[in-house]
Amino acid sequence: MVDTSFFKNNGPFDLKKIASITDSVLKDETNGSVQINDIATMDKAGSNEICFFYDKKMKEKASEMKASACITTNELASLVPSETAVLISENPKIAFLKLNLALYAEYSSEAGISSKANIHKTAQIGQNCSIADFVTIEEGAVIGDNCRIEAGAYIGRNCQIGEGCRIGVNAYVSYCIMGKNCFIYTGARIGTDGFGFDFIDGKHQRIPQVGRVIIGDDVEIGANSCVDRGALDDTVIGSGTRIDNLVQIAHNDKLGMGCICCSGVGVAGSTQIGNYVVLGGQVGIADHIKIGDGAQIAAQSGVMRDVEGGAVLLGTPAVPFKDFMRQVAFLQKSIKK
Amino acid sequence: MVDTSFFKNNGPFDLKKIASITDSVLKDETNGSVQINDIATMDKAGSNEICFFYDKKMKEKASEMKASACITTNELASLVPSETAVLISENPKIAFLKLNLALYAEYSSEAGISSKANIHKTAQIGQNCSIADFVTIEEGAVIGDNCRIEAGAYIGRNCQIGEGCRIGVNAYVSYCIMGKNCFIYTGARIGTDGFGFDFIDGKHQRIPQVGRVIIGDDVEIGANSCVDRGALDDTVIGSGTRIDNLVQIAHNDKLGMGCICCSGVGVAGSTQIGNYVVLGGQVGIADHIKIGDGAQIAAQSGVMRDVEGGAVLLGTPAVPFKDFMRQVAFLQKSIKK
Amino acid sequence: MVDTSFFKNNGPFDLKKIASITDSVLKDETNGSVQINDIATMDKAGSNEICFFYDKKMKEKASEMKASACITTNELASLVPSETAVLISENPKIAFLKLNLALYAEYSSEAGISSKANIHKTAQIGQNCSIADFVTIEEGAVIGDNCRIEAGAYIGRNCQIGEGCRIGVNAYVSYCIMGKNCFIYTGARIGTDGFGFDFIDGKHQRIPQVGRVIIGDDVEIGANSCVDRGALDDTVIGSGTRIDNLVQIAHNDKLGMGCICCSGVGVAGSTQIGNYVVLGGQVGIADHIKIGDGAQIAAQSGVMRDVEGGAVLLGTPAVPFKDFMRQVAFLQKSIKK
Repeated sequence: MVDTSFFKNNGPFDLKKIASITDSVLKDETNGSVQINDIATMDKAGSNEICFFYDKKMKEKASEMKASACITTNELASLVPSETAVLISENPKIAFLKLNLALYAEYSSEAGISSKANIHKTAQIGQNCSIADFVTIEEGAVIGDNCRIEAGAYIGRNCQIGEGCRIGVNAYVSYCIMGKNCFIYTGARIGTDGFGFDFIDGKHQRIPQVGRVIIGDDVEIGANSCVDRGALDDTVIGSGTRIDNLVQIAHNDKLGMGCICCSGVGVAGSTQIGNYVVLGGQVGIADHIKIGDGAQIAAQSGVMRDVEGGAVLLGTPAVPFKDFMRQVAFLQKSIKK
Repeated sequence: MVDTSFFKNNGPFDLKKIASITDSVLKDETNGSVQINDIATMDKAGSNEICFFYDKKMKEKASEMKASACITTNELASLVPSETAVLISENPKIAFLKLNLALYAEYSSEAGISSKANIHKTAQIGQNCSIADFVTIEEGAVIGDNCRIEAGAYIGRNCQIGEGCRIGVNAYVSYCIMGKNCFIYTGARIGTDGFGFDFIDGKHQRIPQVGRVIIGDDVEIGANSCVDRGALDDTVIGSGTRIDNLVQIAHNDKLGMGCICCSGVGVAGSTQIGNYVVLGGQVGIADHIKIGDGAQIAAQSGVMRDVEGGAVLLGTPAVPFKDFMRQVAFLQKSIKK
Repeated sequence: MVDTSFFKNNGPFDLKKIASITDSVLKDETNGSVQINDIATMDKAGSNEICFFYDKKMKEKASEMKASACITTNELASLVPSETAVLISENPKIAFLKLNLALYAEYSSEAGISSKANIHKTAQIGQNCSIADFVTIEEGAVIGDNCRIEAGAYIGRNCQIGEGCRIGVNAYVSYCIMGKNCFIYTGARIGTDGFGFDFIDGKHQRIPQVGRVIIGDDVEIGANSCVDRGALDDTVIGSGTRIDNLVQIAHNDKLGMGCICCSGVGVAGSTQIGNYVVLGGQVGIADHIKIGDGAQIAAQSGVMRDVEGGAVLLGTPAVPFKDFMRQVAFLQKSIKK
């Protein structure tokens, strides 16, 4: 049961409305007026609650279902107990997402600018923004309409933040041009100096980092992740890319559109990553390499060379998935001799 | 020598008192009135200082000891110079901990609520709390007695924080029910959105994350670590668990009691970890797996499958400790041929 | 083209001045009055802009150069088109650094102490410091001249910060003695408790951490990195050492001078690292070991044993570079059989 002290419940909805929201078909139309208050997992859903059944591993447990309603596929529907109203969906996973979005909302701060924020007089704040306490917005920064800047966040000089962005608690954004509808999570650090030095007279002398961070639309950058600004060129994060927590993106990196970077990923500097690339957790990518569109690098892998589009790699150094599995099998066999 | 500008020294203590504090026995009772001001390492301890000798590797250096007193085992006592007063303990390591706790205290802020904090009028603050400057406590949050909320920390709407908790500087807590005596370190992020998306029409559409983070009693979560809230289910951290810095715990993870997660660990979503499990530094755990009670996973390992209780694993993919060592030996031998 | 909304351009400079700044020689002195406004990469530089040509991989592209001027080596100069004025340098990379430093400056906050900062009355602030909003400086802290403490940063009780230091937005510094000209990046955590416990009566009892963090001169500690204070001894970071983002340095670690720790590195406790050691991204170092001067550990390696000075290691467990490459070749060959 979703905790309504944390999330706003827009229900109850009847099953007729739920069928419409989720693009599903109610098997028995006489159930159209059944009231649903909540969504829950298959094993926990009870009276006036709806669950979703699409994982075939759960087949054996289907008969124990206690939910008032269940959205499932045509194929799995016969396994649902007769007491449970059935809605048929082509994709119950997406139906779940749609109902979830309709039924629940996060509590969000109201529009308004806190008197405890520090906003430079030359900064421009759009319509209907929420700017919380202890926020700093520096000279010349431009914040689009409908943005939400949370407590203690920092927006540096002359940054441009597109409309509908959310900048989380204590996040840091500098030297950055950001598109629309981005979400920078709490503690993320955008626009810090790249890690570049020349060794002169026994010292690592810092190379000035005079590039920027360019972020597309609808980008998420997770909690405590870091995106360094470019050295001379820019660091670029393409639209629709999702970056998890504790990820490092170094100076001059270019990430394409719709990429996924799981937690703990580190991408060294000046690397080019195509569109829809997936980097699993704790993956490391060397500097100055190219990764083609749609490549998938499994968790903990280390990539030292260019990767072709569509490749599926694993290991350090990363090799094709099958080769890795063969290496593992070979090693296991060898030590048993 | 402990720097008393940083830590409060409750001494000096005489050896009779130290014997009592540490459950040890003074070998020569006439030394009971010897005054001790400080604790130090064996090689550095001098006049009016006490050291602890339990590491057998230090046997050769024992004769160089200059400390006024030494807590050691019955077995090692004969190696201590005659000028040093000896206290015999069954476990000098624990004796050290006890004396350390008695002799030193951190300077801690006094109880009181800063006028520069932003506390919603509906939030409930317990007795004897310390709430520092630039703290935000949102609507309906409940803070137990004797809590310490440090500068710039953020407590989200309707969170419940048990008594005796410490929430560090600039830490973030949201969608969270927390037990007693927990310590959330500076920069930790609790309750952020899990990293879950459905790919619809060429976009990674965020799945609403409507679960919570449930934290037991006496839990520590290290600096800049992240614990995402559940998707529909909750993320759970069991009592007595210790999480180091820069660790990622994903949505729906369940950690049991008394676990240890060293720095850099990443646990992917919906994984169940038993009680007293130890995860070494930089370990990665895949999603949707189970790790049994008391399992130990060595540093940098990658776990892709369920792990039995008590197993000791190493490597990526993680294998039993002996197998890993055999693999290493086999590879070294193979390249020498 | 460097974005002057983010960086201050001190130009234009003529080529005579640039030759002087960069210790280079203008090939044709009649070009001395050519005006340069900006620096850019070889492929992007145009009219009134200067580029740097020292990467031999770029030889083929040299003929396409459109820059007004180019700093290059004597060897490569003949490849530069005749329309581009040439300056000869022994080290164009360092020439680039020097011109960059002269031509651009970051916009920096003016000296002054914000009325919205919380500075304890016993804290000492040096001359010409900039202390931003929402900063906390605790009792007895001493801040040297020309320091810059950014928004929301925290300086703990009795810390000493040398002159010319920059403490980034929302950074945390406690139990710390810091030298001159250090840069602690946004979100870094210095002086947190080390991760040390004794297992007593079924609980991991915290060992009090009564040491400090001692930081030399000219040290950089990256965004969201963590340096724990010592347990009884101190944690030490030598002068000139550069630590990237998201790095973990544990209690009692000693890092020498001029070390480089790339992003994602984790060093476990009580380890001693010599001078000018390089740790690649995501490297893990075990506790209580010694790494000699000038050792280089490649990215993602795991070091479990002492390392000799000058060694170049790779892999988990780390082996000499050549051995690692042989292991990789052997495995690839074995699975092809």
